[in-house]
Amino acid sequence: MKAPENIEIAGEPIPLSLRLQRGELLAADCPSRSVLKHVTSQWGVLVLLVLLEGTKRFSEIRKKVNGVSEKMLAQTLQSLESDGFLIRKSFPVVPPHVEYSLTPLGMEVATHVSTLADWIESNLTRIIDARNHIQSK
Amino acid sequence: MKAPENIEIAGEPIPLSLRLQRGELLAADCPSRSVLKHVTSQWGVLVLLVLLEGTKRFSEIRKKVNGVSEKMLAQTLQSLESDGFLIRKSFPVVPPHVEYSLTPLGMEVATHVSTLADWIESNLTRIIDARNHIQSK
Repeated sequence: MKAPENIEIAGEPIPLSLRLQRGELLAADCPSRSVLKHVTSQWGVLVLLVLLEGTKRFSEIRKKVNGVSEKMLAQTLQSLESDGFLIRKSFPVVPPHVEYSLTPLGMEVATHVSTLADWIESNLTRIIDARNHIQSK
Repeated sequence: MKAPENIEIAGEPIPLSLRLQRGELLAADCPSRSVLKHVTSQWGVLVLLVLLEGTKRFSEIRKKVNGVSEKMLAQTLQSLESDGFLIRKSFPVVPPHVEYSLTPLGMEVATHVSTLADWIESNLTRIIDARNHIQSK
């Protein structure tokens, strides 16, 4: 994380094109913020994890991501598709058959998300202990 | 990610105590979901990144996390504190002086978050190219 203290060089603002060679999450107007939002939204994380297992249909994803509504799942899939992280393939059959799979870019980001998710799952006992300790103070 | 297909063994529900030995993000009622939410909220991510640099005062964090409101920052810090990821230390002086720093647990999670953030920043050009490609279809 090399975040600049400001977005100027010698008093001149740095052009967006130059700043975009590397995103700056700490800058409010950097497009990396919206990517972060999609990738780390609660449903975004879980959809990425499920798709890491392989291509899935809408109904399969919904079943695995316990608690997600149809509307939220559709929105989540659309955001991740628009960032180029997944591909939606629809087959012209009745009833409709739509499949989702990660792109190579999506695989990369999902792998990082999975490491974080894995850490949370493995350390949940420590986190709950910390929570109880703080609450009992 | 070893997510179970269901939360039953031989027709009997698995007791929460047993399930909590390892969190299951895909289960709607698992406490790991709220941890994920705090850690991956837009402001949660950015606060963790800033605190990876070291102890900071409220005003310093607010200045670095471009665009966050005082209220949202206070809420974010409180959630991360209640999960045991950071320590808030207030000094009995006038004007009030409050410092925040990561706990060892917070350091660990922040490191994973930072890897993900770093990937997004480094790959922003690829993501924007993918976005433009999809939009032009």
